[in-house]
Amino acid sequence: MAEEALVSRRSRLLGAKSQLFYDEPVHLVRGEGVWLYDADGRKYLDAYNNVAHVGHCHPHVVEALCRQASLLNTHTRYLHTAILDYVERLTATFDASLSTAILTCTGSEANDIALRMAQAATGRMGIIATDATYHGNTTAVSQLSTRMPPVGGRARHVRLVPAPDSFRHPDAMANGKAFGDAVREAIASLEQDGIGLSGIILCPLLANEGFPTLPSGFFDDAMRAVRDAGGLVIADEVQPGFGRTGSHFWGHQRAGFVPDIVTMGKPMGNGHPVAAVVTTRDILATFRNAFRYFNTFGGNPVSCAVANAVLDVIEQENLVANARDVGAYALGLLRPLAERHECIGEVRGAGLFFGAELVHDRKTREPAPDIAEQVANRMRHRGVLMGKTGIHGNVLKIRPPMPFSRDNADFLIGVLDEVLGEVGGVKA
Amino acid sequence: MAEEALVSRRSRLLGAKSQLFYDEPVHLVRGEGVWLYDADGRKYLDAYNNVAHVGHCHPHVVEALCRQASLLNTHTRYLHTAILDYVERLTATFDASLSTAILTCTGSEANDIALRMAQAATGRMGIIATDATYHGNTTAVSQLSTRMPPVGGRARHVRLVPAPDSFRHPDAMANGKAFGDAVREAIASLEQDGIGLSGIILCPLLANEGFPTLPSGFFDDAMRAVRDAGGLVIADEVQPGFGRTGSHFWGHQRAGFVPDIVTMGKPMGNGHPVAAVVTTRDILATFRNAFRYFNTFGGNPVSCAVANAVLDVIEQENLVANARDVGAYALGLLRPLAERHECIGEVRGAGLFFGAELVHDRKTREPAPDIAEQVANRMRHRGVLMGKTGIHGNVLKIRPPMPFSRDNADFLIGVLDEVLGEVGGVKA
Repeated sequence: MAEEALVSRRSRLLGAKSQLFYDEPVHLVRGEGVWLYDADGRKYLDAYNNVAHVGHCHPHVVEALCRQASLLNTHTRYLHTAILDYVERLTATFDASLSTAILTCTGSEANDIALRMAQAATGRMGIIATDATYHGNTTAVSQLSTRMPPVGGRARHVRLVPAPDSFRHPDAMANGKAFGDAVREAIASLEQDGIGLSGIILCPLLANEGFPTLPSGFFDDAMRAVRDAGGLVIADEVQPGFGRTGSHFWGHQRAGFVPDIVTMGKPMGNGHPVAAVVTTRDILATFRNAFRYFNTFGGNPVSCAVANAVLDVIEQENLVANARDVGAYALGLLRPLAERHECIGEVRGAGLFFGAELVHDRKTREPAPDIAEQVANRMRHRGVLMGKTGIHGNVLKIRPPMPFSRDNADFLIGVLDEVLGEVGGVKA
Repeated sequence: MAEEALVSRRSRLLGAKSQLFYDEPVHLVRGEGVWLYDADGRKYLDAYNNVAHVGHCHPHVVEALCRQASLLNTHTRYLHTAILDYVERLTATFDASLSTAILTCTGSEANDIALRMAQAATGRMGIIATDATYHGNTTAVSQLSTRMPPVGGRARHVRLVPAPDSFRHPDAMANGKAFGDAVREAIASLEQDGIGLSGIILCPLLANEGFPTLPSGFFDDAMRAVRDAGGLVIADEVQPGFGRTGSHFWGHQRAGFVPDIVTMGKPMGNGHPVAAVVTTRDILATFRNAFRYFNTFGGNPVSCAVANAVLDVIEQENLVANARDVGAYALGLLRPLAERHECIGEVRGAGLFFGAELVHDRKTREPAPDIAEQVANRMRHRGVLMGKTGIHGNVLKIRPPMPFSRDNADFLIGVLDEVLGEVGGVKA
């Protein structure tokens, strides 16, 4: 089979453990809007790829890319208007305090800077994150992941607090007090070890944690604890940003807090490698004094033209309103499935980021990552690409490009209903 | 003036200390081949930008970019042939042992991985670099820069050895023994502190160190010391790679050693953010076992199409041979300038990376970074873009796009001759 040959070539060139999705990996050759096509011409509904934020190969974005790439692409130590126009437009979507930016090429680079900004602003090193998070792949940022202890051991300045779990511990969700207490404990531990707190980094949607349902004001107590200790709040908007949640342009606006630093990633360029850190004028100045930072191609004219075109499309196609409408519509279709399929423990989400937590037993709430895995694989064979996430890897993750329609939702939920019917009783 | 308004807008949006080149920054709007154009239609010969490796806005590269961006751009957890074709073609330019790769978006990300590969392969943390180097801007990689101590202090596992200086200490250059001794001392210090050696990271051209003239086999003694201690050799090819030195495709081939890990940066994509780490199958496997690394958009189909097109152009336009020919021709024009201008201490370089070390006094060899600064600024006003580098910031850095011609060299050296005549006697 052609795919097998590719897998073995890949293993030879990229390493045996280079990650692939699905038991039978998909060989994609073309994308358009919310659709992806494989080498045999088979079509897949993309319910996974948030990076292609305004849809695969959006003509307006591709046109902006090609126009600027034909004209000029160079670094930002020369003057150019594209980066200024873009940063002005981008920061206008934030609270007035968040008025400056550094552009980078990846979200990992953005978070790597954000951590140093908090260090520079506080003079301290300690950082808090949840114990089921992912913020990127640089050495410094991957210290926030729990997956594997790095060579040389875990960094002493990282404290991981338990990720909130609205399904298993709904009692602890009421007002965020339990989360706040965990944060206070982490701060005390950092202070006791003579490290001190620089800040907390959070995805306001807690996307990788399985996007638990958070009551309004959930983060208030934790934020207060961080600020009382002189720390900064970093919002990682790689996933909830650019209107994905439907109700707000940024996840922290939906969650109801104003961060000191905001990071964003590749949805910003619809897949073109451009990312950003947005912060206050003072924090930026302190960072620039403490670190002589320069990112050769962050904010180059091509990246800015692309990022600007993405904002055009979000506005022109009313994609935030679409995320709100279609997200609510899809949740409305998904909820009744819980009545038919025993394995659904909870249905939840916000805008075009939704899904369901799968369990082996609704009473014990025993997580069913094996069923989630089977669902993702069977969906792939039926022409829908989606994934799984969460603390236990048992949450179906549906996070499509933003032009996802009600029709797409009908198709998605219809196929999911069938697949859950097939696997619902299966316990691996 | 329009430029002043841009500078003040920039300061407001990107921070007062965001870096700009030249006393009067250039506002660029268009690039083509080795030429850049400002907003007033003025034309500049680009003798600085190595990132636009095959020339600004090369039509073959732009066409590949646009074609693939219109077709598909997604991450590498799906199968795609572009990344396999590219990695196969790329690794074919190396020693047979270097047969695998991880693609990233930036050279900083590549070096950040390379450091962890050395850690994973050795189980130790210590890393050696020179004290006048630059390998990138992530938290981990910027620990290798001497510029400013980071918040939280310098990392305990970094040892910086004195950068070789062929102009001021030619005696120490003869066989690389002094450099080897410094490396041995650093290894002993790491072992004494219980840290141990993971490896050494070097630009084989020592580009940021001021590209000193290195006798053949210069690095042999240092490499032997590193390998005797069980360490790995990382070659940072961001600057000398892809044929820039004219004699070889890679800087380490010119320097005569085979590294364990090679990194490369944006010249690989002619400015499109794509970069890579090339290594042996064993080291890659060890790294993938030790770190669960994934780079969402490193090696996406668009980046690979662009990188592949860059290799096409290098071959089709014989750019390596051109670098050899024009580099030698330009050095031949530059050397006689030393007879007329007292401030030239030494002329040196390799292929299309050459320049001259400027001094206030040839006998004392007192570095003249002030004159170098003036030269760069005056060249800019006369329509030539170039920079300065080196341990003392006094080395004129000429590092143009690879299609630089003999005519371009005539123009460059002619203007430089005039400018040196103006500033040669001036001592700031």
